[in-house]
Amino acid sequence: MPSSPIRKLAPLAEAAKREGVKIYHLNIGQPDLPTPKQGLDALKSITRTTLEYSPSEGYLSLREKLVRYYHKFGIEVTPDEIIVTAGGSEAILLSFLACMNPGEEMLMTEPGYANYISFAVTAGIVVKTVTSTIEDGFALPPMEAWEEAITPRTKAILLCNPSNPTGYVYSQQELAKIKEIVAKHDLYLFSDEVYREFVYTDEPYLSAMNLGIDDNVILIDSVSKRYSECGIRIGMIVTHNRLVRDTIMKYCQARLSPPLLGQIVAEASIEGTEEYTEACFREYKERRDFFIKGLNSIPGVHSPMPHGAFYTVASLPVADAEDFCRWCLTDFRLEGETIMMAPAAGFYRNPDLGQNQVRLAYVLKKEDLQRALYILRSALKAYSRR
Amino acid sequence: MPSSPIRKLAPLAEAAKREGVKIYHLNIGQPDLPTPKQGLDALKSITRTTLEYSPSEGYLSLREKLVRYYHKFGIEVTPDEIIVTAGGSEAILLSFLACMNPGEEMLMTEPGYANYISFAVTAGIVVKTVTSTIEDGFALPPMEAWEEAITPRTKAILLCNPSNPTGYVYSQQELAKIKEIVAKHDLYLFSDEVYREFVYTDEPYLSAMNLGIDDNVILIDSVSKRYSECGIRIGMIVTHNRLVRDTIMKYCQARLSPPLLGQIVAEASIEGTEEYTEACFREYKERRDFFIKGLNSIPGVHSPMPHGAFYTVASLPVADAEDFCRWCLTDFRLEGETIMMAPAAGFYRNPDLGQNQVRLAYVLKKEDLQRALYILRSALKAYSRR
Repeated sequence: MPSSPIRKLAPLAEAAKREGVKIYHLNIGQPDLPTPKQGLDALKSITRTTLEYSPSEGYLSLREKLVRYYHKFGIEVTPDEIIVTAGGSEAILLSFLACMNPGEEMLMTEPGYANYISFAVTAGIVVKTVTSTIEDGFALPPMEAWEEAITPRTKAILLCNPSNPTGYVYSQQELAKIKEIVAKHDLYLFSDEVYREFVYTDEPYLSAMNLGIDDNVILIDSVSKRYSECGIRIGMIVTHNRLVRDTIMKYCQARLSPPLLGQIVAEASIEGTEEYTEACFREYKERRDFFIKGLNSIPGVHSPMPHGAFYTVASLPVADAEDFCRWCLTDFRLEGETIMMAPAAGFYRNPDLGQNQVRLAYVLKKEDLQRALYILRSALKAYSRR
Repeated sequence: MPSSPIRKLAPLAEAAKREGVKIYHLNIGQPDLPTPKQGLDALKSITRTTLEYSPSEGYLSLREKLVRYYHKFGIEVTPDEIIVTAGGSEAILLSFLACMNPGEEMLMTEPGYANYISFAVTAGIVVKTVTSTIEDGFALPPMEAWEEAITPRTKAILLCNPSNPTGYVYSQQELAKIKEIVAKHDLYLFSDEVYREFVYTDEPYLSAMNLGIDDNVILIDSVSKRYSECGIRIGMIVTHNRLVRDTIMKYCQARLSPPLLGQIVAEASIEGTEEYTEACFREYKERRDFFIKGLNSIPGVHSPMPHGAFYTVASLPVADAEDFCRWCLTDFRLEGETIMMAPAAGFYRNPDLGQNQVRLAYVLKKEDLQRALYILRSALKAYSRR
């Protein structure tokens, strides 16, 4: 079981905090924006007196609201086709467990969200990666690379769109290619679309649910990021494939129920929050523009322009980015402050890749991003002079 | 992956409800008692504006309160030795994943909580059962039976004390025997003690944490039952074994964090609720006395006297209890009402055992238990005359 590259340096950060050091967290996608007032108010108006189990598949009232939410994105499903989970995390794990047997193979791009690997290890499945490069802005790797990676044991492709950690948004053409390969080899397509609301291009967003390969697609979703409510642990699995749903439900029944209180907050957050959603969108877009420009203005730092989510993978002028990240936490202080970043090597399977890269999340307000950029610039200078 | 015997008949119950039939739920341990007011009030006084991730191991403030809680039961631990999970369910799964490799064997008594099997399947581990019998009141099976079941691949014993589904409370002598076998073969002992508060004997309760085999014991716990807050999904793993904790933390980091809101409710429920706890205890004890007496007064029904938790496994005068449970939901109505029970066969691994048994939970108020008993008596009569 690998350690989380996002959280593995946490003990160093804790130690620095105990010394009174202020840390700017660029390492974790914990949005700083407020949860919608509707969601918070829902907690205050709870009248039930027993906080009982919910149905294993989640409350129908929540799933009905989700049906209307998906409809706005052109995704047509019924409440029965939605299963509520303990965050996107559980949605991923249960999808793996239900669709794949131990020893079977799943393909994903690297760099990729590191916790996919952890859940794959848990489910006993083998992950093979197809490499996207910073030089290509992390575009979809060519079809030949996917075909090469496929073996008789390949059962699924996992795509994160928009991508964590790169912020890349796959184009309609790229998705058409993925569809072709999925259909040709009759694979499952796990499509993690939790950043759907944060797409900064003008091209219309295409969900894997609309590729026309209904029985193959398992949509992974979560309210965590779009409503700044990561802590409530509410995600969902959406699929037209009934057999997959029935199998997932067995796992869901074993763990009894998804969080009740989170469902109440999530349900209240879905409707009547259009203004909130637009404001969040504008805020993240502005931060992106500001942050990526700032990064690229630091000598030796390069970040492609991410078109979605709120992450980027940037290369730094260091040989070992993990060492640099650690050093920032243990040794470097700028007026009692420092930054925390996630070493990107943990997002690659190939141990030779991403050594000089970091994943950065722009979920801090602009002044803090500005300060973090300044600290990064200063830290790189000091690190090179050690 | 087996279906949950507790929830597998749920679709039949849903169908009956849609017809307007009232169902008395004896099938699931969903307490009807209210959640402590302190817990509910804590939700209403939340001042944070972003419902963010909590630490992967749970909030320190919660873990500190748990330390004081355990101290009252003579269990001495530090906050570092507690990891907060998404219910006891996740505590079980992560303990299995961290301590055992796929293919290794775990022993448990049968009948046993069916979801252990589901989590074992998820973790790829092999469950072997040692049979306890209704004739012996579900006492610990003799040592020879355990020794016989042990192979070189056995890595753990799981004990649920007080037991779900039987309500059996293991005596100090029985626990001493378990200790001996655990120590002799250097096994892990997973001790699920979520019903610790509900022990109706005068003998002092002994936690596995106090058996003197510190590095072997993994305590599984949950606030669900003791504070009637099953829906908040807050459980915990407690162990002195640091290596196990470190491994569990890797899984915890992958799933990011346990439910934030549940932690707030749980923390508020632990202290200042002594009166609440005593009232719940008295209530369950009264119900047990009433319910078990009522069961045994129905011709052909036999239930041992359970000394803990709020379940019993009873034998019915039917050849196939699952068929009878289904029939109660689909065919039998008494003035528009019926009962739902969990067929006990699902709690046994041996397909020949428990065919005429059901698991019943006494988490309804006395009038409802009385009515449910009357319906059971009438249903048995009608079923035998079909």
